[in-house]
Amino acid sequence: MSIVLSRDSRVRVMENTVTNAEKYFGQLCSLLAAYTRRTARLRDKADQLVKQLTDFANTENPELWATMRNFAEDLAKVQDYRHAEVERLETKVVSPLKLYGVHIKQTRAEIKKFKQVQKNEIKQLEKLEKLRQKSPLNRQMISQAETSVQRASADASRTTHQLEEVIDTFQKQKLKDLQKIFSDFVTIEMVFHAKAVEVYSSAFQILESYDLERDLEDFRAKMHGVYGHYNARPLKDTMPSPAVSWALTGQSTQATIRSQRRDEEEDSTEHSAEEDPVQDLRGQGQAPQQ
Amino acid sequence: MSIVLSRDSRVRVMENTVTNAEKYFGQLCSLLAAYTRRTARLRDKADQLVKQLTDFANTENPELWATMRNFAEDLAKVQDYRHAEVERLETKVVSPLKLYGVHIKQTRAEIKKFKQVQKNEIKQLEKLEKLRQKSPLNRQMISQAETSVQRASADASRTTHQLEEVIDTFQKQKLKDLQKIFSDFVTIEMVFHAKAVEVYSSAFQILESYDLERDLEDFRAKMHGVYGHYNARPLKDTMPSPAVSWALTGQSTQATIRSQRRDEEEDSTEHSAEEDPVQDLRGQGQAPQQ
Repeated sequence: MSIVLSRDSRVRVMENTVTNAEKYFGQLCSLLAAYTRRTARLRDKADQLVKQLTDFANTENPELWATMRNFAEDLAKVQDYRHAEVERLETKVVSPLKLYGVHIKQTRAEIKKFKQVQKNEIKQLEKLEKLRQKSPLNRQMISQAETSVQRASADASRTTHQLEEVIDTFQKQKLKDLQKIFSDFVTIEMVFHAKAVEVYSSAFQILESYDLERDLEDFRAKMHGVYGHYNARPLKDTMPSPAVSWALTGQSTQATIRSQRRDEEEDSTEHSAEEDPVQDLRGQGQAPQQ
Repeated sequence: MSIVLSRDSRVRVMENTVTNAEKYFGQLCSLLAAYTRRTARLRDKADQLVKQLTDFANTENPELWATMRNFAEDLAKVQDYRHAEVERLETKVVSPLKLYGVHIKQTRAEIKKFKQVQKNEIKQLEKLEKLRQKSPLNRQMISQAETSVQRASADASRTTHQLEEVIDTFQKQKLKDLQKIFSDFVTIEMVFHAKAVEVYSSAFQILESYDLERDLEDFRAKMHGVYGHYNARPLKDTMPSPAVSWALTGQSTQATIRSQRRDEEEDSTEHSAEEDPVQDLRGQGQAPQQ
């Protein structure tokens, strides 16, 4: 009977391995999926900020307008990198963890199969024991029962070996995958953060080089009526607009595509109104050259 | 009358300046507050991930245990930096923008004051005009009305100058603050991302140096019963634990403090059940040898 117990305890080790993997991989999968979703929501909020900054820039004098627009563009770039981060996390971290559900189910089925074989072995052993107590002289029956026990034991032994191989492969794959998944996680995060540092360094330069005094002079001139009337849109007559407005439109396209995939909590503000001035300008057929 | 119109248009420039600031600063403030909140939520989710990874590590063999624990610790460090990012954004970006509400109200009051003075000027002008048409010969009354107009005009002129100074200061401060607030935003983000790159580089090394083969040998030994019984907790007898477990406690304290401030959406799963299988095995005290 001791070999049965030993086998039983070894199977429990194997079962624990699978149960643990099932539990923790499941939890890690939903946590990492939630982490990815929250990153996506942060990206969406920053996209709204980009939009708002662009709208705001359009109401300001050329100097601040250019600064805010370039800054907004850099902020948009960071969100593009964040978007890539989200997609990579989904593909290389969340999806492989999700696949584990199937993998674990298959391994569970193998364990179940073995347990039935093991049950049969115990049943045959008990039968033999009973027979030995009740009819110790019935050699033929005892011999038959002994053969059954041997057969059941051989079955159990063989299945245990098979199971050990299955679990060995499972564990090896698990460890490999863990290392791979978390290395991918770290790489994805690292790439994103490194890109963000790069873009924000440029954004910092943009803000540093903003000429407040020049802007203020512009404002004063307008306030004192030098231009005759207040013109809040530098696009109108100060800036060489077609290329610029095109760049603006191009920049916001990706954000628009992305925003379609959003699970929005807040309503985004309406986007149609702001495009009109640019459209108007294009419609007027003005082609100021730089 | 033309001086009145010119004054009127100049005031409109000033009014627009304040109205725009009110609108956009308000919107930027709530967007940046929301951005900060979402960053905080991302931090909270990552804190949960750290906890889950630590729990998972505790069910694994020493090799994976150490790797996962060190990795979780690095992930926790990134969240500490993210936490600092959130606090700095609140202090240096959201709060100053919030203060603008008060500032703008005061400036609005100044404009309102001027508008009343301006209204009076127009009223006096209209009175004089009417008088000239109705009683062109009543010199005394016309002269009185002319004096009133002159007084009202002087008032308006003086107030316009005062207002111009107020708005000039307002605009200058606005531009300065904008530059400061967004430079602070960029600096805060840059510092966080740079720190994250640093920590993730170390995390990558940790995962790279994980010895899968050694771990697998450990596992095989356990599966084949070499250690006598399955011990899922390397802390118990494999690791020099006191210092290590203390470090673990220390590490999670900050996350625990932070998590009290969380607006939790998901419940964390219960952690007590998982200990049972291990306890059972230990209780049996079986020591099957191979």
